[in-house]
Amino acid sequence: MPPGGHPARAEALATLSRIAHEKMVDDEIGRLLERLRPLEESLEYDSDDASLIRVTRRDWEKQRRVPTELRVDLTRAAALGNQVWIEARATNDFAKFLPALQRNLELKRRYVECFEWDDSPYTPLLDDFEPYMLTSEVADVFATIRPVLSELVREAPRVDASFLHLSYPVAAQVGFYERVLATLGLDEGSYRLDPTVHPFCTSFSRRDVRMTTRFESGLDGLWSTMHEAGHGHYAHGIAPSLERTPLAGSPSLGLNESQSRTWENLVGRSRQFWLHWYEPLQETFPSQLGEVDLESFLTAVNRAEPGPIRVEADETTYSLHIILRFELEQQLIEGSLDPKDLPEAWNAGMADLLGVEVPDDTHGVLQDIHWSQGGIGYFPTYALGNVISLQIWAVVLEAIPDLDAQMEAGELGELAVWLRDNLYSLGRKFTPKETIERLTGTPTIDPQPYLAYLREKLASQPAGV
Amino acid sequence: MPPGGHPARAEALATLSRIAHEKMVDDEIGRLLERLRPLEESLEYDSDDASLIRVTRRDWEKQRRVPTELRVDLTRAAALGNQVWIEARATNDFAKFLPALQRNLELKRRYVECFEWDDSPYTPLLDDFEPYMLTSEVADVFATIRPVLSELVREAPRVDASFLHLSYPVAAQVGFYERVLATLGLDEGSYRLDPTVHPFCTSFSRRDVRMTTRFESGLDGLWSTMHEAGHGHYAHGIAPSLERTPLAGSPSLGLNESQSRTWENLVGRSRQFWLHWYEPLQETFPSQLGEVDLESFLTAVNRAEPGPIRVEADETTYSLHIILRFELEQQLIEGSLDPKDLPEAWNAGMADLLGVEVPDDTHGVLQDIHWSQGGIGYFPTYALGNVISLQIWAVVLEAIPDLDAQMEAGELGELAVWLRDNLYSLGRKFTPKETIERLTGTPTIDPQPYLAYLREKLASQPAGV
Repeated sequence: MPPGGHPARAEALATLSRIAHEKMVDDEIGRLLERLRPLEESLEYDSDDASLIRVTRRDWEKQRRVPTELRVDLTRAAALGNQVWIEARATNDFAKFLPALQRNLELKRRYVECFEWDDSPYTPLLDDFEPYMLTSEVADVFATIRPVLSELVREAPRVDASFLHLSYPVAAQVGFYERVLATLGLDEGSYRLDPTVHPFCTSFSRRDVRMTTRFESGLDGLWSTMHEAGHGHYAHGIAPSLERTPLAGSPSLGLNESQSRTWENLVGRSRQFWLHWYEPLQETFPSQLGEVDLESFLTAVNRAEPGPIRVEADETTYSLHIILRFELEQQLIEGSLDPKDLPEAWNAGMADLLGVEVPDDTHGVLQDIHWSQGGIGYFPTYALGNVISLQIWAVVLEAIPDLDAQMEAGELGELAVWLRDNLYSLGRKFTPKETIERLTGTPTIDPQPYLAYLREKLASQPAGV
Repeated sequence: MPPGGHPARAEALATLSRIAHEKMVDDEIGRLLERLRPLEESLEYDSDDASLIRVTRRDWEKQRRVPTELRVDLTRAAALGNQVWIEARATNDFAKFLPALQRNLELKRRYVECFEWDDSPYTPLLDDFEPYMLTSEVADVFATIRPVLSELVREAPRVDASFLHLSYPVAAQVGFYERVLATLGLDEGSYRLDPTVHPFCTSFSRRDVRMTTRFESGLDGLWSTMHEAGHGHYAHGIAPSLERTPLAGSPSLGLNESQSRTWENLVGRSRQFWLHWYEPLQETFPSQLGEVDLESFLTAVNRAEPGPIRVEADETTYSLHIILRFELEQQLIEGSLDPKDLPEAWNAGMADLLGVEVPDDTHGVLQDIHWSQGGIGYFPTYALGNVISLQIWAVVLEAIPDLDAQMEAGELGELAVWLRDNLYSLGRKFTPKETIERLTGTPTIDPQPYLAYLREKLASQPAGV
């Protein structure tokens, strides 16, 4: 979009959100839901139809609490904030961004007032992305992982990863990523991969999965492709019977992110995966990797190395970036942090949590798009995804005992089918905790498998460059 | 979109068209329009508000005639036909395309039945793109130009244009096209140019004009950029007071196309334009054009050279491609041509009108996307645009007496402002004929200026290669 397009886009989005909201909160939907109650009660809890009625009722009741005008204002402010953020980040100008942030925060506080909460006004915001999750639950998980990660990052050996950031010809990257994608178990003709600045995956239906990656940061695009393929897998695996219903999605962003992390990290940084793929990768990039042995490669792609930018962070450091944002967001919503003091608080948090000095706001508080769009309550789901991914992975390893051997043979099909059948296909039928319990036997978010995974990974790293 | 996405896209579009249609044809809109009648009558015919009420009433009355289910079916069939066409064209398989064409034709006939007409059942279809225009009026214009164009094309000297289709490095093309675009009078920051397979321009608001071009066909992308810039100019020039109303558009596709043709041909193939730009072009592409003098270049870009493909056709041949489609479309809608006989009729028409032998259906009847989407009645507007562009150009030359000198100096600003103030800014306030009359003093579509222009152009061509 040319920059001049922002204001009209904001109005168009505001109008669409008005139409969608008015349709959703209509009294008629409530009457229909009431009429369906006997049917719902006559059906199995797990059935598609009972789930459809139950989840739609919850959506309806939640959206009914929000006045249409507030919904429209939120949408417009998010779109306009986005434009201001682009300019502010480009010019390292937090003062320019501040009014848009204040406007979005003010609207988010009015949004919070539409709901009841026990622990924190942050909980209704969190609920938009991680339904039924309390702020206090997230805080407990983060309190457990924070000191461990902080110590792991500070003690991690510095390793040579410079070969990952040489120049890798784009056409060869595309070819290799497409080869890997073809083995992930996605149906041919239902996905595509395109270049972008900031990778994302969007899906318009089960068979219309659009992944993007970037080709300008050495080999990073490989893991960003695997990451987006995880999101794509989720959308692709939703049961056909749920298409074009409110159930065609994932129960929460945390669960969705757990799968992007699974494919990116648990598969894409594993020794087993690279026992198959490293030779083809070397053959594709002989001048960049011909002299790098598998051990050095694995050490580099599994290293922990703190830096100021979240999207460039390694697996271990990543959740620390999130914890900082979670803490600042709560303070902003609770009112204990004045938005104008945000850069200072950000920089102090980065020093405290990661031991990183922030060079400027562009590489600090202005680095992410989310707050400019009023996306508050979203960040924690990234770290929850990391945690949940390891809980689910433990079950996967039990269910597919020879998964290691399969991965070494370049076979990911059984993994894909298992995850589809046991997780992706469920869509939004169940709450996040119900979904996790179905898979793992417990609804609790347990950070221990995640911490054990990172500890073991970093303990095996050779010391020093 | 990956190919698997087509069915879900068709359903999504069908749903959107249902919502839009239901909102538009609501009784409440009629009541509001009735209530506004006294206001409308108290205002000047030319005023924004009177025009808004008048045009919206016409839109409402027209759309009310179409049952929502038919509108939905048309939308779905168009989207599904598109998919079939992509596959059929790729495999030169008209039989595969035939059922989709038949389905779209059947729905179009049911659509026609929603309306009254005097001259031809084709008129209600034409009206969707060229409001208030009768089939018989178009037939009259085409009957005048057909023999002249056919003769001009057959008698045109063959000239050397091979240098236009050498390899032109993409980055240099982008740089040059951006330089030219910057002089066309579009506000900075309100447009962008991107690569595509089949060039188009889409605009989401006055200040969000998105043009595309192609870089793989030698220098053709230059004129396709100028062409799309004409469409972009129209959208960009609509009066701000009309934004987000039904008046934010152009009165007809013919008028819109007249402007893409103006910038592509009347500006972009003129001697005056190239007296300024040819030296910079040579400097940009010294190995391709260094040895080609201005006269040879002008001769090549103004040549007439019949071929099978419409989108590659020169200015003179182009309208003949359209006349063929117009005749076939009428026969299909009137029922005098069975769709299964379309390839034969197509090939015969190409031989008759252009003297061209069609190699296969992919380069014949399957070449265009329009029919696959039920876009019947659309094609004639392309040729009407050619005709209208010269009627308006005659007025422009009177209004800006030193336009030639301005173009030679690389100055296009006054032309852009004049066209904006006298045409683009009006949006859809007036009917096509009212609009043409405001500009030229007559509502009649007069093909003589267009024919005179082509005759003069081709008469000045040197004979032989």
